[in-house]
Amino acid sequence: MAFNIVLVHPQIPNNTGAIGRLCVNAGASLHLIKPIGFDIDEKAVRRAGLDYWDKLDLKVWESIDEFFTCNDITDNAYFATTKTDKPYFDAKFKEGDYIFFGSETKGIPEDLLNKYKAQNITIPMTKDGRSLNLAISTGIILYDAIRQNYSTFSEE
Amino acid sequence: MAFNIVLVHPQIPNNTGAIGRLCVNAGASLHLIKPIGFDIDEKAVRRAGLDYWDKLDLKVWESIDEFFTCNDITDNAYFATTKTDKPYFDAKFKEGDYIFFGSETKGIPEDLLNKYKAQNITIPMTKDGRSLNLAISTGIILYDAIRQNYSTFSEE
Repeated sequence: MAFNIVLVHPQIPNNTGAIGRLCVNAGASLHLIKPIGFDIDEKAVRRAGLDYWDKLDLKVWESIDEFFTCNDITDNAYFATTKTDKPYFDAKFKEGDYIFFGSETKGIPEDLLNKYKAQNITIPMTKDGRSLNLAISTGIILYDAIRQNYSTFSEE
Repeated sequence: MAFNIVLVHPQIPNNTGAIGRLCVNAGASLHLIKPIGFDIDEKAVRRAGLDYWDKLDLKVWESIDEFFTCNDITDNAYFATTKTDKPYFDAKFKEGDYIFFGSETKGIPEDLLNKYKAQNITIPMTKDGRSLNLAISTGIILYDAIRQNYSTFSEE
């Protein structure tokens, strides 16, 4: 799989379902880090994920610690947040990268953002803007990673 | 406003609400072309649009004909569809461009796609892919237009 999307403590089943559909369409793997705000098998997830949900390369992790124990995260990860000025399209995404998104209400935990400060990225907004829907944000950044690596993507 | 998002006959209020929020955050105007599958004032639209909905530069058109009578559409428009191979990031977006999206079920009407064939664009998907959620698709293409014109965007 080309890219890894990591949702840290997502709360809204429709968003995770829509992101699952996005990942299948985009050839990405989806990681969910517990606790999450819904049951993964509940109808709302599958409704938003349509019939794509069963094709999804999905990994569910019991905690942030478990995720970091089992995955080798160095400079191959980016962390989406409103707390940096670095636009996501200034990052140089490579195949296999992990792109982290926080919960709809709280974002990525501060200690995680601080630990990887140079890899924090954001979606620029106008001065009227504060935040975007989680599923839309995931699509915007994942597809820029695909655009940057498109020669590989087309061959899949 | 930098870009114009045009939804032709949208059906799902949550998508239009989320796209309204996206447009405010991205400094874009939103055009809705009737018939649409819901009442614009219904709660689901505003719930998905959060408190952004009232800040939205929104225009509602009675029909496709009315839209084209009142707006000057030439080479300043792009039409998102799964029926072309031209990736959206190969388009050269300019400020003020109109980006069209069809309904969740039917896409943009064929005659409109055919009339502007050279301006049809698509979001590349893997071979398992068929389609993306409308709000996610809008975010992906709108933000590539912003990326391409970012020097202007930052000054707003």
